[in-house]
Amino acid sequence: MAKAELKLLGTWSSPFVLRIKWALQMKGVEYDFIEEDIQNKSPLLLKYNPVHKKVPVLVHDGKSIAESLVILEYMDETWKENPILPEDPYQRAMARFWSKFGDEKCLPSIWRVFTAQGEKIGQALVSASENLMILEGELKGKKFFNGETLGFADISLGWIVNMVILLEEILQLKMIDEQRYPSLSAWMKNFSNFPGIKDSFPPQDRMLTKYRTLREALLATRGSN
Amino acid sequence: MAKAELKLLGTWSSPFVLRIKWALQMKGVEYDFIEEDIQNKSPLLLKYNPVHKKVPVLVHDGKSIAESLVILEYMDETWKENPILPEDPYQRAMARFWSKFGDEKCLPSIWRVFTAQGEKIGQALVSASENLMILEGELKGKKFFNGETLGFADISLGWIVNMVILLEEILQLKMIDEQRYPSLSAWMKNFSNFPGIKDSFPPQDRMLTKYRTLREALLATRGSN
Repeated sequence: MAKAELKLLGTWSSPFVLRIKWALQMKGVEYDFIEEDIQNKSPLLLKYNPVHKKVPVLVHDGKSIAESLVILEYMDETWKENPILPEDPYQRAMARFWSKFGDEKCLPSIWRVFTAQGEKIGQALVSASENLMILEGELKGKKFFNGETLGFADISLGWIVNMVILLEEILQLKMIDEQRYPSLSAWMKNFSNFPGIKDSFPPQDRMLTKYRTLREALLATRGSN
Repeated sequence: MAKAELKLLGTWSSPFVLRIKWALQMKGVEYDFIEEDIQNKSPLLLKYNPVHKKVPVLVHDGKSIAESLVILEYMDETWKENPILPEDPYQRAMARFWSKFGDEKCLPSIWRVFTAQGEKIGQALVSASENLMILEGELKGKKFFNGETLGFADISLGWIVNMVILLEEILQLKMIDEQRYPSLSAWMKNFSNFPGIKDSFPPQDRMLTKYRTLREALLATRGSN
């Protein structure tokens, strides 16, 4: 695969973009990364993702694919080396199920914790903890979601590692402790220490500055409504 | 495939269940349908979909799969006859993209029209029409989403046909007219006249009674808040 044929439009700090970077890294596929400014979307982004106008977008030989979970499926079907989905249909269904659960339930509920203030933090924590406890149950006795091998669901849910750091540092909130979430805590370590994943997390200080500013801006907007 | 090995837990009126019925019909796979009462969930449903406690759930040889789009993927990987996803990875990505767009954008926006009252109907219509116009653009010059063959995206978006009837009959609202949406109108006809699909829509009078009652109940609840 020549480098020029593959472009990833993204932002360095998006959890949805990060999962594509992780998968590309695992596949060993070379690509050009094009940093987007979400406040000032480029003509390229509007051209390649006219429906959602969001990152990530993967552009392969001029054809564009949007929606990060759709991109992951495309990648696994296009570059067969180091498959991220298992072979067995039922195991594949489980990987998709947990990825969808992560995007539709976990991420919004943890985001509500992150953007809550005062008493509302406690309420948001209840719902986020319920979702995390479901993941804890699923991961019990397993190194990764599919067992011994890091794959689709791990890559999809890897944003949890970052989010937990942001909550700890910005809200001083220990979201996932080892006593309550032994399996999830172990999974976070297994995931973030995995070769290829380990080195492709964004720099922590930069993440903290970015999300601290974002949170303050969101709270200020909300306050003025 | 022996009949006893495959169960579908669902309700006759759910658009998410209907798509599984259509796909099973296309695959020619025999199954047992178990009608659930969503107001009084069965121990079977709670056992087989403990995370979401929602229908549809497909139970195949004792193993359960939830989330209708995940089930469709599982079905296509398990019963290879009459594939619903195309072979080409890019075309597969497009089928997934439009199905996701349907579930995450179109369906909620049309549901907001259906459950709106008075002036709010107009506001809800603006957003729903924008989404439908995107589908109109995508379907231009094509019989089905993937071209000549009915497949994954058509099955996923088939609920539109029912929803349009409900809006016309219950709200007296012509959501999709042939002049403004020629391609989408043609697709609706192509889809609902397709062998196997045609005969598996729920009876219209029963749908109307069900959704008229549901809408009234929702509006009454909202009014009392």
